[in-house]
Amino acid sequence: MGEFDLIERYFTRPARRASLGIGDDCAILSLTPGAQLATSSDMLVEGRHFLSTVLPERLGHKALAVNLSDLAACGATPIAFTLALAMPRADESFLEGFSRGLFALADEHDCELIGGDTTQGPLNICITVFGEIPAGQALLRSGARAGDDVYVSGTVGDARVALEVFRSTLGLEGDAFESVRRAMELPQPRVALGVALRGIATSAIDVSDGLLGDLSHILRRSKVGATLDVDAMPRSKVLAAQAMAMQRTCTLAGGDDYELVFTAAPERADAVHQAAARSRVQVTRIGRIDAAPGLRLVDTSGAAVDNTFGSFDHFRS
Amino acid sequence: MGEFDLIERYFTRPARRASLGIGDDCAILSLTPGAQLATSSDMLVEGRHFLSTVLPERLGHKALAVNLSDLAACGATPIAFTLALAMPRADESFLEGFSRGLFALADEHDCELIGGDTTQGPLNICITVFGEIPAGQALLRSGARAGDDVYVSGTVGDARVALEVFRSTLGLEGDAFESVRRAMELPQPRVALGVALRGIATSAIDVSDGLLGDLSHILRRSKVGATLDVDAMPRSKVLAAQAMAMQRTCTLAGGDDYELVFTAAPERADAVHQAAARSRVQVTRIGRIDAAPGLRLVDTSGAAVDNTFGSFDHFRS
Repeated sequence: MGEFDLIERYFTRPARRASLGIGDDCAILSLTPGAQLATSSDMLVEGRHFLSTVLPERLGHKALAVNLSDLAACGATPIAFTLALAMPRADESFLEGFSRGLFALADEHDCELIGGDTTQGPLNICITVFGEIPAGQALLRSGARAGDDVYVSGTVGDARVALEVFRSTLGLEGDAFESVRRAMELPQPRVALGVALRGIATSAIDVSDGLLGDLSHILRRSKVGATLDVDAMPRSKVLAAQAMAMQRTCTLAGGDDYELVFTAAPERADAVHQAAARSRVQVTRIGRIDAAPGLRLVDTSGAAVDNTFGSFDHFRS
Repeated sequence: MGEFDLIERYFTRPARRASLGIGDDCAILSLTPGAQLATSSDMLVEGRHFLSTVLPERLGHKALAVNLSDLAACGATPIAFTLALAMPRADESFLEGFSRGLFALADEHDCELIGGDTTQGPLNICITVFGEIPAGQALLRSGARAGDDVYVSGTVGDARVALEVFRSTLGLEGDAFESVRRAMELPQPRVALGVALRGIATSAIDVSDGLLGDLSHILRRSKVGATLDVDAMPRSKVLAAQAMAMQRTCTLAGGDDYELVFTAAPERADAVHQAAARSRVQVTRIGRIDAAPGLRLVDTSGAAVDNTFGSFDHFRS
């Protein structure tokens, strides 16, 4: 099967929002008047961002999910995406599953595939996603202010639990394993929450490299510090049943969570919880922003906890 | 050197047009009111799109050039691009050269790097480029009409000559080799010509997979046929000195030319040549569009030439 047949069979759908669909030199998009374009690119490599054991359908989901998560962190509404895909060979069963998972999530968010590229090479998936946002309303990393509350959506840490099971440093079976594996392989981008937090949150980022590491980007850009309650981190029942050291590593430095960490003024707490309820996502207050730089960890009794939790770096770990 | 240090050192520049530069979850772009967004993604893989012997600086140039060429084929003005880069290791001398070549071409076209991703993995370069175009003025593949003239910019075939030298099927040395090697490694995207042809050309495409193969996309989308004069194909002196069979293969099915093939009504011939002169690019009339489907080749005497020239397919060749 040739390159053009592949594109035709698995990735061509009728153009909707795009003025031109797949098949011209460029895709042409019109934005809503007054809107700005939000865009982000993520590249996924086998063995680094996903394991070779992942089902193609879940890989298709995740490849788009991690990009939609970047839109969510800016409060942007998804519009469209492009897909560039390198594969060792044109494997139809892979493509069938991959495209099914990809389009299921894309349709859920009304996000249209408008172009891309396929080529032969080591498996590599690069998606660029496009969203729009009313001018000036993007959630940035730079807006946190001293006194703001720090929140995180959903639960954190399960994807890391799954990774530790794959690494054989943790034993889990049956439903417990499947639930953390789903967290790793089928993350749900918090798009509705990001949109609902426009005008409420003062800053936001998505948790991809670990909560502490990602929050530190907000602190650096906003020129502030923070104090977090390590016992307040929302976690699943499966994770809550593990040893305390594992719980802390997974919640604080787990990575691959794709939840939103965000800040808001204390007087907007009701608005935050209403936005969360509208988006059907739980949010948990995990700390506060300080004027003094640095990240301080405390436990529920207020005692200091050493920050020995590393962040994920694609050239270090 | 960690991922964030790499990004900081080689790819961070002050934000200009983008409302947010590298370092937030998304880049935020504002378009000119009334403009549409044109976007395209290309993925380059070692051994398939470039040889391991290419200078990093030239690879940086080419990775962006092939994307700018897609904008050119639509008549879009470049605005910005994202870069996703997988590398086996953080090789500073590679990154220094690559980023230098990349930014030299980007600056030439006032095209700003607004985001991206770096990760460890087999070398893979995925660029997504953004341009803008007055609404409704994009050059499409679908607009060719019977009676139109068919043109190509520059010369075609030299990149294929270089490939044949690397494959040892052709011997070339010294300046002759360097000139075809530059054609392969340093293609010049015809951005100014694409913009100048808005409102003049009835269809356009860039030549990446070979002239006949790429023109056939225009014919299929436009539901027309064409007759081409194989002796009219513009070629370099180096190529003109080769055997006739090699000349025909390289000009008609060479690939990697990144010239524009376009069509225009005969009464617009003066406008075409004025657009070419303004863009400082030679254009050559190579045939005409027919109402009858199919692609017919003739030589300068009008005698039919068999079309035995294949097109380049990333899963076949």
